[in-house]
Amino acid sequence: MNDPTNWYERYNTSTIVTLRVRVEDKPGSLANVLTALAEQSAQLGDISLVGADGEHKVRDIQVFFADTAQRDRTMAALAKLPGVTLIRSVDEVMEIHRGGTIETKARVPLESLMDLRMVYTPGVATVCTAIADNPSLAWDYTALGNKIAIVTDGSAVLGIGNIGALAGLPVMEGKAAILDRFAGLSAEPILVNTQDPAEIIEVIERIADGYGAIQLEDIAAPACFTIERELEPRLGKPIFHDDQHGTATVCIAGLISALRRTGRKMSDVNAAILGAGAAGSAIARFLVDLGVADVVVCDGAGALYRGRTARMNNEKTELAKITNRENVQGTLSEVMAHRNLFVGVSRPNLVTQDMVRSMDRDPIVFALANPVSEISVGDALAAGAAVAVDGRGMNNALAYPGIFRGALDARATKITHAMKTAAAEALANAAGDDLLPNMLDLSVHKAVANAVARAWTPEEL
Amino acid sequence: MNDPTNWYERYNTSTIVTLRVRVEDKPGSLANVLTALAEQSAQLGDISLVGADGEHKVRDIQVFFADTAQRDRTMAALAKLPGVTLIRSVDEVMEIHRGGTIETKARVPLESLMDLRMVYTPGVATVCTAIADNPSLAWDYTALGNKIAIVTDGSAVLGIGNIGALAGLPVMEGKAAILDRFAGLSAEPILVNTQDPAEIIEVIERIADGYGAIQLEDIAAPACFTIERELEPRLGKPIFHDDQHGTATVCIAGLISALRRTGRKMSDVNAAILGAGAAGSAIARFLVDLGVADVVVCDGAGALYRGRTARMNNEKTELAKITNRENVQGTLSEVMAHRNLFVGVSRPNLVTQDMVRSMDRDPIVFALANPVSEISVGDALAAGAAVAVDGRGMNNALAYPGIFRGALDARATKITHAMKTAAAEALANAAGDDLLPNMLDLSVHKAVANAVARAWTPEEL
Repeated sequence: MNDPTNWYERYNTSTIVTLRVRVEDKPGSLANVLTALAEQSAQLGDISLVGADGEHKVRDIQVFFADTAQRDRTMAALAKLPGVTLIRSVDEVMEIHRGGTIETKARVPLESLMDLRMVYTPGVATVCTAIADNPSLAWDYTALGNKIAIVTDGSAVLGIGNIGALAGLPVMEGKAAILDRFAGLSAEPILVNTQDPAEIIEVIERIADGYGAIQLEDIAAPACFTIERELEPRLGKPIFHDDQHGTATVCIAGLISALRRTGRKMSDVNAAILGAGAAGSAIARFLVDLGVADVVVCDGAGALYRGRTARMNNEKTELAKITNRENVQGTLSEVMAHRNLFVGVSRPNLVTQDMVRSMDRDPIVFALANPVSEISVGDALAAGAAVAVDGRGMNNALAYPGIFRGALDARATKITHAMKTAAAEALANAAGDDLLPNMLDLSVHKAVANAVARAWTPEEL
Repeated sequence: MNDPTNWYERYNTSTIVTLRVRVEDKPGSLANVLTALAEQSAQLGDISLVGADGEHKVRDIQVFFADTAQRDRTMAALAKLPGVTLIRSVDEVMEIHRGGTIETKARVPLESLMDLRMVYTPGVATVCTAIADNPSLAWDYTALGNKIAIVTDGSAVLGIGNIGALAGLPVMEGKAAILDRFAGLSAEPILVNTQDPAEIIEVIERIADGYGAIQLEDIAAPACFTIERELEPRLGKPIFHDDQHGTATVCIAGLISALRRTGRKMSDVNAAILGAGAAGSAIARFLVDLGVADVVVCDGAGALYRGRTARMNNEKTELAKITNRENVQGTLSEVMAHRNLFVGVSRPNLVTQDMVRSMDRDPIVFALANPVSEISVGDALAAGAAVAVDGRGMNNALAYPGIFRGALDARATKITHAMKTAAAEALANAAGDDLLPNMLDLSVHKAVANAVARAWTPEEL
């Protein structure tokens, strides 16, 4: 991949700080600062001169860190350097979120009284009356057909956990920003201040009329399964839990590419999945629906099998019914042996090179745990994986913008298996020599949307 | 008022149609069409030539109608004209609402992987963690401090009535568009599919964390009183029912101007209000809080008084306690006699010239019923009113953008009487020679916002 922005991806930076430092104006001063930064493995961005008084120079130095711990170590090291004063540091990630990453804008002129009388009273009464007479006109004469509620209870935000809906708001805004830029959709975060599935269902039902579709986001398993299953038939409009189906769709897209590369068919796939939460469950169900040879889901207690009683819940019991053809028991290590696909959606560093070596020839390894994967891509490849990818290579933002755009364009009443499959195939077809296409390429999202809209058939209801 | 856009205001147009007509290409053809339109009192806008074939000319004629009945009569008349074919007609009001009048946009760049990693994962985790540690940071690092929910149950939409929340959506979008353009606020329609006050309260409480303030809109009395009263202390953030307080604030602003013009003080005001719903109740309470001499509220059954039992509800009983100093009974006509202010927020044509003549010298008449007022401005002036205005001259959009902007800028936890009074005074002070300022003048909304923010004191809690 020769995209010059990819250096950033490679370094896995999540913290960017601009340091304003005053250094003595003599040869070697700046080099001393940069050496100190290098000793902490900090990556440098722009360095700009912002002031000088004859004895000192003031510079802004943009520094990229993998995490806040590295940042704090580096700042402490700088503070000890003689002749260097740290005037201030600005966290660029915090700054880009200042005031939020989305806004609601008028999309019509409001420059004259005539404009106001058409957009607002008295003219708007014509539109209201038309919709009262024929409610389906709301799809044409309001923003409804472009509008998505991103609903969260904050119970499983990113890899952070149950931090509550308000603390999850920056994620919801980020998703909404992506839905705008990648698919021209208007998405609104809805923060629900309860984590009781029945209450979440009730709130969504009460406010769903204002949205063309509902995206569930960062809601923990097993509540997410209950909410989606119970709401879908009641709402009669698309509802999509991204942590389940977005992740699964991108994973299947990557799998389609990987099968092409390793000369396999979907029916050849014999998979071990580590993680029985939202993502693991959805990926397993997707694989079963696609007709793979077998798939066994593991959690911390090993394989899910029919008859298992320890650490089970309804969803795991259902999964055990439709997976694990030979009803194998045993640890992840035992399950992985001789299979050709591993998908990890669990926690860091749970897979060893020996476990990869025990797999079938040319195995496919998707180690998707965030922020650190089950096994590094390098270690997996060194242990013989034909294809290895981690979570940075599989971003849900490849899938959900186009899926919602397509579902709304088709005025679909649900998002079917056929639509998700069409999205995965469109992504694989757009990938070129890579496993997955570049999510910054807007034509990718258009291709997904078109495929999804074409795949909608009300008969699946 | 010499604003050239005001011709539109004068004609009270609410329906704009562009007619595409094919007419014979001979002298007088177009004149015949225009004569037919004139006979229906239709107002003409642009006329443009869009095609010609030697024997015919095709023209687009923009026509303004007061209502859809006039439009339908005119179309029928045109259809009978010899030599004229109506090719199509486009309702310009419907067209401006096509696809909705608002949209949610990203307000940060999303052009590179670096942008994505700052706005979304993994960078966004820094912001989430910061807010989880200190929830008040959400005001700085999300859109929260700029964000308003416009909540409706659709029970009292404009003058149309109980048409349900979905049919009211164009009004909510129009308000949101105005909040963006006039005050830079991000407002989101929330359509609640129940008209039970307890359920509406519960839904708002469940989702309020995502908004800096709540605007209640087009919710019928008396449910609107219950919802506002019960929610305010529970939410700890501004809640504002525009049909009550927006209307009252603009009315009081006009009154301040009118008192200056007629050489009166607020303590001289002796008012009759017709209408005991949301607006009438809020105006009466506002007048009482401002220390007027007296105010008597009337409904269809006459004056509200202590001891009245017919057609009462809780709100009317409370109103009767704080108004009507002499506990007068009787009809509107009896109540209006010798008072110096009439405010109508009821239904068309309920006030006669004789009733105005029976008032004190130089009476002030605010006849605000929509779309047709209790008495026309011309009739009121002819009957001796010193100041007369109808609903077109008093638009809530003068008040609510600045009130919300000021309340959010001050991080107020409620909207107090002092803040509403400050808004009314700011509007009156910006009015110049008119009763109220031009709502298209953005400096007006800024002045209201500044006055409201300055007027906030937590002591009023």
